[in-house]
Amino acid sequence: MATHKLLLLPGDGIGPEVMGEVKRLIDWLNSAGIAKFETDTGLVGGSAYDAHKVSISEGDMAKALAADAIIFGAVGGPKWDAVPYEVRPEAGLLRLRKDLALFANLRPAVCYPALADASSLKREAVEGLDIMIVRELTGGVYFGEPKTITDLGNGQKRAVDTQVYDTYEIERIGRVAFELARKRKNKVTSMEKRNVMKSGVLWNEVMTQVHKREYPDVTLEHQLADSGGMMLVKAPKQFDVIVTDNLFGDMLSDIAAMLTGSLGMLPSASLGEVDVKSKKRKALYEPVHGSAPDIAGQGLANPIAMISSFGMALRYSFDMGALADKVDAAIAAVLASGLRTADIKSEGTTAASTTQMGEAILKEL
Amino acid sequence: MATHKLLLLPGDGIGPEVMGEVKRLIDWLNSAGIAKFETDTGLVGGSAYDAHKVSISEGDMAKALAADAIIFGAVGGPKWDAVPYEVRPEAGLLRLRKDLALFANLRPAVCYPALADASSLKREAVEGLDIMIVRELTGGVYFGEPKTITDLGNGQKRAVDTQVYDTYEIERIGRVAFELARKRKNKVTSMEKRNVMKSGVLWNEVMTQVHKREYPDVTLEHQLADSGGMMLVKAPKQFDVIVTDNLFGDMLSDIAAMLTGSLGMLPSASLGEVDVKSKKRKALYEPVHGSAPDIAGQGLANPIAMISSFGMALRYSFDMGALADKVDAAIAAVLASGLRTADIKSEGTTAASTTQMGEAILKEL
Ligand SMILES: CC(C)[C@H](C(=O)O)[C@@H](O)C(=O)O
Ligand SMILES: CC(C)[C@H](C(=O)O)[C@@H](O)C(=O)O
Repeated sequence: MATHKLLLLPGDGIGPEVMGEVKRLIDWLNSAGIAKFETDTGLVGGSAYDAHKVSISEGDMAKALAADAIIFGAVGGPKWDAVPYEVRPEAGLLRLRKDLALFANLRPAVCYPALADASSLKREAVEGLDIMIVRELTGGVYFGEPKTITDLGNGQKRAVDTQVYDTYEIERIGRVAFELARKRKNKVTSMEKRNVMKSGVLWNEVMTQVHKREYPDVTLEHQLADSGGMMLVKAPKQFDVIVTDNLFGDMLSDIAAMLTGSLGMLPSASLGEVDVKSKKRKALYEPVHGSAPDIAGQGLANPIAMISSFGMALRYSFDMGALADKVDAAIAAVLASGLRTADIKSEGTTAASTTQMGEAILKEL
Repeated sequence: MATHKLLLLPGDGIGPEVMGEVKRLIDWLNSAGIAKFETDTGLVGGSAYDAHKVSISEGDMAKALAADAIIFGAVGGPKWDAVPYEVRPEAGLLRLRKDLALFANLRPAVCYPALADASSLKREAVEGLDIMIVRELTGGVYFGEPKTITDLGNGQKRAVDTQVYDTYEIERIGRVAFELARKRKNKVTSMEKRNVMKSGVLWNEVMTQVHKREYPDVTLEHQLADSGGMMLVKAPKQFDVIVTDNLFGDMLSDIAAMLTGSLGMLPSASLGEVDVKSKKRKALYEPVHGSAPDIAGQGLANPIAMISSFGMALRYSFDMGALADKVDAAIAAVLASGLRTADIKSEGTTAASTTQMGEAILKEL
């Protein structure tokens, strides 16, 4: 059996708690002889800053580059609101994305039937919802230069951010979206603001070309990001795969996640290009939810998004689709049994702590 | 009685139809001696392109600069998808905003009780919703330079857009938000992405300063634009005034509008600075909805957003708050009577065409 090297980066807030439940699952997989994972742990975000005054140390970056996959918790919190911009908690995550070239962020927005009532949307609008948001993750306004604040004198400053996209960046994220669509409902909706942004014009043009040239069998639709956002709120079930840039993807995937009522349940995968020789790809898996510092350390956090992110690692990094299906089924079974963490608790269900939820899922497996 | 000069720019799609109902209202106000409006009409968007190969002619720009207020319909449609970028329909609107320095875009998102069920959100989430989105309208990525597509050779192009904000731009939009909050529920939520964008860092810093220095009596909260978008979908009633930049404002105001279930009902105002001497300000009023080319010319469009935008003109440009209140009351009364255009039609209500709706509101007045 091949040994897979995992780097666990729990981060801040509820990160360590939910990571603990993934650790429990990994230990069991190892001891039951189902898989062979070698794990190491590192610091990222505020916890790295507290220890080393950086958002991720060079040592941990080296570990990240050497790992087969990174399992990432969450970063940030008011405690670090005043630290210098360069070493703010988020910088650690952004550096991982950039240095590992994790250009493809997959964010499924799925509405668990047992949780449909937790949505602020009407049940009929979200029941059965299953969309995949494919967000470009290493380009756009997140990394473009110049990115500066300049003092103009007279109490005036000027802030500049730069959105940059090259053809090849749009092509490769487009391919990820079209490939995924082929295994789903065969439809891709590309979103940009071509009526205002030159990057939107190029995005639209390149998506259209990739579609025509390589994926004519998939349905491609284009929407302006603002009306796309509206459609997402009005009738989300019309979408299958949505492909969009880094900043629109940030907004739209969060909104889609919130629609489902299952924010504490949703995983994500950030993938690099497949290496031609080794056939491997760099990858980082993290829950969609943040570090939730307000509930940290109280056993209130929902570990399902984190466990489900590990499930995505099984599927996308280790070709263990069958095991990933079992993890998903175990989560569904535990939910069906009525067990709920505080974030998804409703009348008639049984309260569970972070640990109780993790243990129940493991038992189901 | 003072004479007020209005420039009507109906634009494309359903623009001319809904503008017709405002024209009817203006004619009546004139003939009943309630007000004195002098109207002129111009072309903008696709209709300007068809006539002059530009998105707005220099003649109409001159009229716009000379008018006391502009009443704007909507622009765009698939017919003009292939026209050159510089003369696309939206360019006319963007030029009006920029050349008239209409930096403050006010977008109320109000849920009409009679229409709460039209929302995809649960009634309890949106009933009574009343938020005001204040969007910066002449800065950011909409107008920053460079804004280019460059051919890099080898089939590669590079697209660049630039987000630029200066201190004074953030200060003046902040003041608009704080002033409005004082007349409402006294709370402002500022949204940006300071964890990723330098313009977000400056935005946050300047809002905090303006608040401390000039509006300590108003509550100010800061949210990241992505989690702010989530909160808007989950529990919109927690907000009073939201202030944000041009691009985030575009997305967030559309989403807020869609939440209300009343998209065809929502007006907006785009305002310039008050001139110290004349005490006047440049202003443009337009519905939040677009040109809806699919239903144009069939008498199906809802004229309420357009009429309500004219109501905002009465309030913000002509100091006729009492008359504006009457317009709002007439709209509410007609809705209460059960009259509905196709977009908001539900069981047990009476169907009305664009004209019938306009006439009913006028009759109520
Ligand atoms: C933490 C932050 C930098 C990040 C982002 O903006 O990408 C987060 O919001 C996300 O969506 O993963
Ligand atoms: C038509 C378009 C240029 C415009 C914008 O992006 O600002 C529209 O979406 C709006 O919100 O007024």
